[in-house]
Amino acid sequence: MSTDIKWHDHQIQRTARAEQKSQHPCMLWFTGLSGAGKSTIANALDEALFKRGKHTYLLDGDNVRHGLNKDLGFTDQDRIENIRRIGEVGKLFVDAGLIVLSAFISPFKSDRQMVRTLFPLGEFIEVYIATDLTVCEERDPKGLYKKARRGEIKNFTGIDSSYEVPQAPELALDAGQLSVNECVDAILDYLSERQYI
Amino acid sequence: MSTDIKWHDHQIQRTARAEQKSQHPCMLWFTGLSGAGKSTIANALDEALFKRGKHTYLLDGDNVRHGLNKDLGFTDQDRIENIRRIGEVGKLFVDAGLIVLSAFISPFKSDRQMVRTLFPLGEFIEVYIATDLTVCEERDPKGLYKKARRGEIKNFTGIDSSYEVPQAPELALDAGQLSVNECVDAILDYLSERQYI
Repeated sequence: MSTDIKWHDHQIQRTARAEQKSQHPCMLWFTGLSGAGKSTIANALDEALFKRGKHTYLLDGDNVRHGLNKDLGFTDQDRIENIRRIGEVGKLFVDAGLIVLSAFISPFKSDRQMVRTLFPLGEFIEVYIATDLTVCEERDPKGLYKKARRGEIKNFTGIDSSYEVPQAPELALDAGQLSVNECVDAILDYLSERQYI
Repeated sequence: MSTDIKWHDHQIQRTARAEQKSQHPCMLWFTGLSGAGKSTIANALDEALFKRGKHTYLLDGDNVRHGLNKDLGFTDQDRIENIRRIGEVGKLFVDAGLIVLSAFISPFKSDRQMVRTLFPLGEFIEVYIATDLTVCEERDPKGLYKKARRGEIKNFTGIDSSYEVPQAPELALDAGQLSVNECVDAILDYLSERQYI
């Protein structure tokens, strides 16, 4: 669609922005079932990173759906566009030198793969919160599984729409077995071992 | 379109993120004709702020049109959506504690006003680069005015599409009279006098 546009090389600035913040920017992409603990863990990690002086930002359904993506509904096409835009915004944040976290169910492999390709190697970190469906449904913090079982919500992931389990996520954490703190510590270890932080 | 979504209160985090960066985040919205000097001045300001240790990011047609907004063309509707998304992304960056700069012609008052309303009072700073059309057309760095005069580009701002001059921008700078450095200094003065930086 776009014509007559050249991509400016922001490479030097990009490196400089990251150095200024004493971190290697990346996108931590949390994926998993509703109720798996994505948002809770992402928020706790965000806080832990912030306390270490890191520069972070969390994109979640709440701040994105109300703003940038408020024109999108829940059709397949709109769900794909929702994920695409989050990936593109994440890319801008990483370009700005930040560690950006996102927490969305993102059930389809193709969508997650599409986002992965936006990033240089090593800057997209897929964190699969692998909590069992039975545990998620038991917790049901928003009562959505009950509604889905009653047929009041259609195309609900795990009930009448599939969740495609990541085959090779950078991290897989079962938040049915691990506490929130244990999950956060595992991610912090991952990040510090590889010198993101 | 969106239902069942609550807005999480990130207010405390927001303040903390800004304090971490020793600045008052805001969106500097550059507007003006093609060739007025918006991008040049925004880039120079970005660099000046960075050198002062400030945390900034620049959104421009190049990085946004290639990514987030690559699905948009140049119809009226798409131009409005282009500006809306830039405003929403700017809002996320300001929420993250950054000083964000954007450089887009944004010729219509209603679009700029729409973006202004996304921000708390004082966090949207409209910078009108008030270079005369004759000067812009003389410079014509991309040869676009020539093409527009020959009718090869339709709806070109200043030629066959109007530019609505801001009535009350926070700053108005005539880059036909002032050098790039003088414009940058004027904006830095504005920001430091009001304690953004």
